[in-house]
Amino acid sequence: MDKSLLMELNMDIGDERFNHTLRVVETAVDLGKRHNVDIEKVKKAALLHDCAKFQGQINLLKMAKDFDIILDTYMEYNHDLIHGPLGAKIAKTKYKVEDKEVLDAIYYHTTGRENMTLLDKIIYISDYIEPGRNFPGVDEVRKATYNNLDKGILLAMDNTIKFLVDKNKVIHPNTIKARNFLLMELNSKPR
Amino acid sequence: MDKSLLMELNMDIGDERFNHTLRVVETAVDLGKRHNVDIEKVKKAALLHDCAKFQGQINLLKMAKDFDIILDTYMEYNHDLIHGPLGAKIAKTKYKVEDKEVLDAIYYHTTGRENMTLLDKIIYISDYIEPGRNFPGVDEVRKATYNNLDKGILLAMDNTIKFLVDKNKVIHPNTIKARNFLLMELNSKPR
Repeated sequence: MDKSLLMELNMDIGDERFNHTLRVVETAVDLGKRHNVDIEKVKKAALLHDCAKFQGQINLLKMAKDFDIILDTYMEYNHDLIHGPLGAKIAKTKYKVEDKEVLDAIYYHTTGRENMTLLDKIIYISDYIEPGRNFPGVDEVRKATYNNLDKGILLAMDNTIKFLVDKNKVIHPNTIKARNFLLMELNSKPR
Repeated sequence: MDKSLLMELNMDIGDERFNHTLRVVETAVDLGKRHNVDIEKVKKAALLHDCAKFQGQINLLKMAKDFDIILDTYMEYNHDLIHGPLGAKIAKTKYKVEDKEVLDAIYYHTTGRENMTLLDKIIYISDYIEPGRNFPGVDEVRKATYNNLDKGILLAMDNTIKFLVDKNKVIHPNTIKARNFLLMELNSKPR
């Protein structure tokens, strides 16, 4: 991505989120190398994962409608869930990303999905464990991820689900499907 | 239901589960009266909710196929989830229940579903709080249920979800959809 687009991203999302983004890129590239994933794809997806999180007061609902995003009940209820799908649209139109795998990794980076690709997984977990994150349990997830990517993601999702239950927040069914899929896959493998 | 069918149910599911069933009937009838639900429907659904839990070694997978039940991934992975849908089929064929509402309450009594009927709710929660249940947290759920049925069910589902996460068990997406629906409905009501 050329420098002017990087500057535009920084302007759109603000310094704090741009710095978070750079840390996600760093973590994702590291994980990408360990898992032999195309590093250009990793960089693009990591860099743009939050490109819809514009600074200041913006109306995500209106933007979603402008971009013809079909909102599910959960996005309507919790507008924060819009930024993944909206980010994929903005990555395509503004940042000229054509690669479906990259766009999907952006689309699903908040909820996960059933049968995630390796790229989906790396973006999801890098967003969760980048070095600036310091919520309870994140160190265990870091350790688990570097030991076994799937187990790290499973632990991150388990923590997320329990957190959402305790906070009386809705849980996106994609997160449950992603978690169940990983769990069933891990249990069917010899350990 | 006539006495010979009751005896047949007792034979099929064994004394212990039959006694549990009678306690579910008792709780469900009590809740049914409080919420003005047709008591005949409540009795039928409560009495037959576990009619597919035959005693001894039975092959639920084979029975499901014999009854043309379309298994989802979760039922294939966790055979215990078969007994709701299978119970609805057995209630229809063996116990001659025609009422779709009663059959649905049996079908969904383990997982719940999005937008549950009052009958679904009463069977689901009576199975959870009947007086023989004594697992951690059940008293809070009993209290919540008698105070506000939806809040009781939400608490029961929240406890179930956290229990399944901690035990590394799959969570049926219907449970998540049921919980999210209740949560969104409760939050949109004036409290």
